[in-house]
Amino acid sequence: MMFKSQQKIRFGDIDRAGIVYYPRFFHYFHVALEEFYTSELKIDFHTVIDKHRIGFPVVHLETDFSRPFNYGDDIEVEVSVLQIGNTSLHYQYRAFKKDQKTAHIVGRQITVCMDMDTFKKKPIPEWLRQRLAATLEPRNR
Amino acid sequence: MMFKSQQKIRFGDIDRAGIVYYPRFFHYFHVALEEFYTSELKIDFHTVIDKHRIGFPVVHLETDFSRPFNYGDDIEVEVSVLQIGNTSLHYQYRAFKKDQKTAHIVGRQITVCMDMDTFKKKPIPEWLRQRLAATLEPRNR
Amino acid sequence: MMFKSQQKIRFGDIDRAGIVYYPRFFHYFHVALEEFYTSELKIDFHTVIDKHRIGFPVVHLETDFSRPFNYGDDIEVEVSVLQIGNTSLHYQYRAFKKDQKTAHIVGRQITVCMDMDTFKKKPIPEWLRQRLAATLEPRNR
Amino acid sequence: MMFKSQQKIRFGDIDRAGIVYYPRFFHYFHVALEEFYTSELKIDFHTVIDKHRIGFPVVHLETDFSRPFNYGDDIEVEVSVLQIGNTSLHYQYRAFKKDQKTAHIVGRQITVCMDMDTFKKKPIPEWLRQRLAATLEPRNR
Repeated sequence: MMFKSQQKIRFGDIDRAGIVYYPRFFHYFHVALEEFYTSELKIDFHTVIDKHRIGFPVVHLETDFSRPFNYGDDIEVEVSVLQIGNTSLHYQYRAFKKDQKTAHIVGRQITVCMDMDTFKKKPIPEWLRQRLAATLEPRNR
Repeated sequence: MMFKSQQKIRFGDIDRAGIVYYPRFFHYFHVALEEFYTSELKIDFHTVIDKHRIGFPVVHLETDFSRPFNYGDDIEVEVSVLQIGNTSLHYQYRAFKKDQKTAHIVGRQITVCMDMDTFKKKPIPEWLRQRLAATLEPRNR
Repeated sequence: MMFKSQQKIRFGDIDRAGIVYYPRFFHYFHVALEEFYTSELKIDFHTVIDKHRIGFPVVHLETDFSRPFNYGDDIEVEVSVLQIGNTSLHYQYRAFKKDQKTAHIVGRQITVCMDMDTFKKKPIPEWLRQRLAATLEPRNR
Repeated sequence: MMFKSQQKIRFGDIDRAGIVYYPRFFHYFHVALEEFYTSELKIDFHTVIDKHRIGFPVVHLETDFSRPFNYGDDIEVEVSVLQIGNTSLHYQYRAFKKDQKTAHIVGRQITVCMDMDTFKKKPIPEWLRQRLAATLEPRNR
């Protein structure tokens, strides 16, 4: 069972066209990522940032939006790790209407591990790599 | 000369890692798009939405982030039309530090023309198609 | 027991000074209000807007921020109705660190009932007034 | 002549009720404040934060919203300093439709000078106090 973050489309997330302002979806994705760290990796994202002093700027993003969400929709955002490089991390996000099986949005994202004090790339620390690897689908390990 | 929107990285756009919260870049892109309509297409985006009753939901997005921006940076967001389909529109966005020549961010986006009353796809109206076509690079016409 | 919305300070809510960008608190308040409608008034806020065609623009807001929140804090936002006028509604919001008793933020807000089709003020409908009144503290009834 | 920031109501600032999502006004106010620092105080707000290491958390806010703004409106946000305490700063913000004389929104805000390294209150530095004082209306000096 993959991790899914339970969220809801809010009043302020809707734009002039009456649908979700699309940059908001990346906020939903980030909230889902923070919950994934807490729930699946057993470390809070803020601890990673504030205590371990590493950050993860996004270097590449691809997203397909195939069906709309409406105001008030309960949504589920699934987060999974696709690939773990030396310094890079590939995530996949899929957003569903609650309890449905067809994703409305699918995003793939590459982030790079960065030392928060020097703002330089650095290898993903071993303790984090192990936790991330444990969530990989068998075919991706 | 391609259209460039002049913007600035604001206090509230910075995240816990001290860099721009990446969903904000898509807000910058949208602001640039609205300015592109006013400046290059000679119609306000809000007139397109509110009077002509067509909207443009995003169906695909790809973005590469190769260099960071910092708080207070003056940036330029270039908007260009790459391709005009029957119902679809491909845009390219490139974000630069002001007066520099290497893009920090390059995004490509496909939007679809939607009737705002029925929420169904519809062909891009001829009056809009002509204005969009006039901005195409000769090699894309 | 007053209604409290459970929320969390997110990565993207933090500003360049390392604390919550204060406009975000009003988003937390609004999310809490939406949950208050669902949980306490037994009607979804989006149903009020979309089906009953009434909206509630804010006409007055006062807020005291006495203690900060940090990234990763679990917070509780209490919503209560202070007063119900003919067309106006006074709410109070109080934000706490989870399970603590001293509010970090206290806000009072006046909204006005507006017909979503004419954008004119209108009396709060009786069915909504009754549900709101049932949540009043005895001394405010 | 008081300082006014020129802004525009954007597509993504509109909420499900078709008007500006009110938390966004505080973002407009902050953008206006940043421009006020650059234009009137001759120092960039990011320099104050990043180099002088002082921040200004909001401790009190009062706002009256008397007329709405619509998508596409050009607005002017006037910023003025009302009072300069030892550690506190009172600002006033007024938002107008461009070239009009009646404010749609009037906000008053108290912020406190904070050492960004210790997160403790500190007196407003003399160099900043002088620049702020120079902007005071004669009756407030």
